[in-house]
Amino acid sequence: MQPEDYEKLRDVTLFSELSEETFGALTKGAFLQRFPSQTVLFNQGDLPDFLYVLLEGGVQFTGTAPDQREAVVEILKPIDAFMPAAVLTNTSYLVSAKVVHPARILMVPAAAVQHAIAHDANLSLAMLASLSRQYRALLRQVKDLKLRTSTQRLGCYLLALAAESGSNGQVELPHDKRLIAARLGMTPESLSRAFSSLRTMGVEVRGHRIRLTDVSKLRQYCRPDRLIDSSEPELKVVSAA
Amino acid sequence: MQPEDYEKLRDVTLFSELSEETFGALTKGAFLQRFPSQTVLFNQGDLPDFLYVLLEGGVQFTGTAPDQREAVVEILKPIDAFMPAAVLTNTSYLVSAKVVHPARILMVPAAAVQHAIAHDANLSLAMLASLSRQYRALLRQVKDLKLRTSTQRLGCYLLALAAESGSNGQVELPHDKRLIAARLGMTPESLSRAFSSLRTMGVEVRGHRIRLTDVSKLRQYCRPDRLIDSSEPELKVVSAA
Repeated sequence: MQPEDYEKLRDVTLFSELSEETFGALTKGAFLQRFPSQTVLFNQGDLPDFLYVLLEGGVQFTGTAPDQREAVVEILKPIDAFMPAAVLTNTSYLVSAKVVHPARILMVPAAAVQHAIAHDANLSLAMLASLSRQYRALLRQVKDLKLRTSTQRLGCYLLALAAESGSNGQVELPHDKRLIAARLGMTPESLSRAFSSLRTMGVEVRGHRIRLTDVSKLRQYCRPDRLIDSSEPELKVVSAA
Repeated sequence: MQPEDYEKLRDVTLFSELSEETFGALTKGAFLQRFPSQTVLFNQGDLPDFLYVLLEGGVQFTGTAPDQREAVVEILKPIDAFMPAAVLTNTSYLVSAKVVHPARILMVPAAAVQHAIAHDANLSLAMLASLSRQYRALLRQVKDLKLRTSTQRLGCYLLALAAESGSNGQVELPHDKRLIAARLGMTPESLSRAFSSLRTMGVEVRGHRIRLTDVSKLRQYCRPDRLIDSSEPELKVVSAA
């Protein structure tokens, strides 16, 4: 690992509060690698070999049904660690992970994590914060899936993208439409239908560029909700001495 | 708190590895209470005052949309702690909690949890195990929602109940049908339709009693999957000294 990588990793929230010793133990046996798009990192059902830390790029989690149909459970953005729950409890991955945008990933051997967690209470706290955020993201998603029609879901997704980019109604889709459909729990056909329905709410589509020409009408129809749509910043465990 | 309650709580996985001092600090200011059905414990958006430990009975988590429509996100069974993620990171509850079966609940003040976690690394490990299990349960649910039709979802739910009760195809529904529909992400009407569709797969309904007369046909149609349907036992963080 290059010294500049070492510095950069030290700043990752998961690692920033660790003792020099723990940080050294975690990174010593770790691999920092670039992966091209479509690389499969692991398959559902596998036992966890590594804690992965996504530093750049994008990774999708896929669930596969016995009949081989696939659902995209989540698309991870940097910087985030996956899958802490499986690694910490040594239970099989429930989803597969595949690179969807060329990625730079730190792979920390599961054994090193399990060893470090016995020695540095700050690692437990950092993992609790990371896992809390991921738990809450899934809770938001379950609400999104159960409370909204697919058209509302797409509308809220576009509004969230517009808010993130701060672009006043100009949105660039961050993934191809097939992947967005799968993430939102729709077929590509129902995504097209949903885009058509949203046309009357001022949603104009040109390939990957979307213009929201009447945000208040769209909000009125989709009812965005901060308890579903806000993407949470890094969390920190409140521990009072 | 009665001495026998104290003993019982000591055996709860979340508490069993704690030092006597931490356990005392957590339970000293805690309330052990019975709540009748329909009691609202907290509302979504509230900041967390307590970590709740469900000892008996049942609690549902509900998400409410801006238009007041409701979705049941989860139905908790004893013994389980909720909501560790909100309490640890002092972030607002994303769901409301309501008692659905008369419940006995230990309420541990959030401040006591935040204090104890700074002093006893074993509490962090216990919370990590609990949160990992809850994260994985939600991951299973997202797969269930995205990969299956509602009829398949109901079929898999019945098969899981039959497996749990070990009753060779006799199932007693644990909640009323309206609640089960909401948990499975359906309207009561679509639940009725799903039950009708399952009749040809040997599912006989008499009120709350269900008989599965052709389990292999039902399995063939619903494709249960251990990476979605198995309810996970208590997990433990693997920490290697």
